[in-house]
Amino acid sequence: MNLLIEEDATVSDAVLKAIAHIPTRSLLAIVAQGFFEKLGDRDFMRIAAWLAQKSFDEGGCPIGALIVDNATQQILGKGHNTLVQGNDPYNHGETAAIRDAGRRDFSQTTIYTSLSPCDVCAALLHMRQFDRVVVGDVTNAKGNEELLRAKGVRVDILEDSMAVALYAKYRRERPDLDMEDWKGVAAVRKCKEGGSEAERS
Amino acid sequence: MNLLIEEDATVSDAVLKAIAHIPTRSLLAIVAQGFFEKLGDRDFMRIAAWLAQKSFDEGGCPIGALIVDNATQQILGKGHNTLVQGNDPYNHGETAAIRDAGRRDFSQTTIYTSLSPCDVCAALLHMRQFDRVVVGDVTNAKGNEELLRAKGVRVDILEDSMAVALYAKYRRERPDLDMEDWKGVAAVRKCKEGGSEAERS
Repeated sequence: MNLLIEEDATVSDAVLKAIAHIPTRSLLAIVAQGFFEKLGDRDFMRIAAWLAQKSFDEGGCPIGALIVDNATQQILGKGHNTLVQGNDPYNHGETAAIRDAGRRDFSQTTIYTSLSPCDVCAALLHMRQFDRVVVGDVTNAKGNEELLRAKGVRVDILEDSMAVALYAKYRRERPDLDMEDWKGVAAVRKCKEGGSEAERS
Repeated sequence: MNLLIEEDATVSDAVLKAIAHIPTRSLLAIVAQGFFEKLGDRDFMRIAAWLAQKSFDEGGCPIGALIVDNATQQILGKGHNTLVQGNDPYNHGETAAIRDAGRRDFSQTTIYTSLSPCDVCAALLHMRQFDRVVVGDVTNAKGNEELLRAKGVRVDILEDSMAVALYAKYRRERPDLDMEDWKGVAAVRKCKEGGSEAERS
């Protein structure tokens, strides 16, 4: 089969990081399907954290996400925020993963996101009828978990220490970028001008 | 100056259609800045309608949008839904225009959209602090105008007969695609199975 990662390979950070970097459509040419079947929520969330790290290393916002088929545990889509990399005012981890997955029925899938979803992504996740959302960081942001549950989406919180530490570091180092990603360039300008409108909601 | 469309050119559907098709960054190489200063809300909305027509002609969902600087009347970004063209479960007219505009302060801009914004786009428009939203069709969809006003966004309704007729025709001809764009592939499947969950909200 010539697979680099066989079914019996150890689940390690090196492998999960590689999975984050390998294009979704190439995964099954490199990693055995049986390997994915061994992974649990914590492993999938760590892949989301490695996607966040990839974005951070590219100078971008460190938020990653991936979509997993509930039945087969195959990764259907993954990605990270591309505000900086794509000059895109709104492509969050969740939308990047959805775009990568393409036109699909998401009602039997789980989306793992390294950071609690913003209002826009939360609306998108229930409109696209995701079965389940797993959130990897409610320390640095939270608020839409109850809204999602009220809309019928299953929500689990499973903090990933790497994701939480990375986002905290990024927010300390790049507060303007963090604000732009949540509230736009206008909020950053108003904040610098001393306005109150830029406060995080 | 070698401009194809000079300041004193007549504002016609042929010119507005051309503006819809010309890449945003090429507009001022082809059209005099003074021409844009002559345009009014109805003209900008007609450009959004031509963007919708472009998408329809490509086999896609007919919804277009553009972002105009309030002071200069320059077009900063424009686009249309790319569900079909980009295999993208969520790139509506509004997000396409925002992506095209890139990282900017939107607080002194107006977004013209050929169809009333969905819940996801409405959340995005106020989070990115648009000053004003002009809606070209509340016959085929509506509902978020009051929410946007409550969030401090100015909203004007200015129906464009071409946009309204086109969307009505598309919904008759492509009901599945229309539902997928609003509620996802899962809703289309449930509707075919006779479920009630797929009802439009």
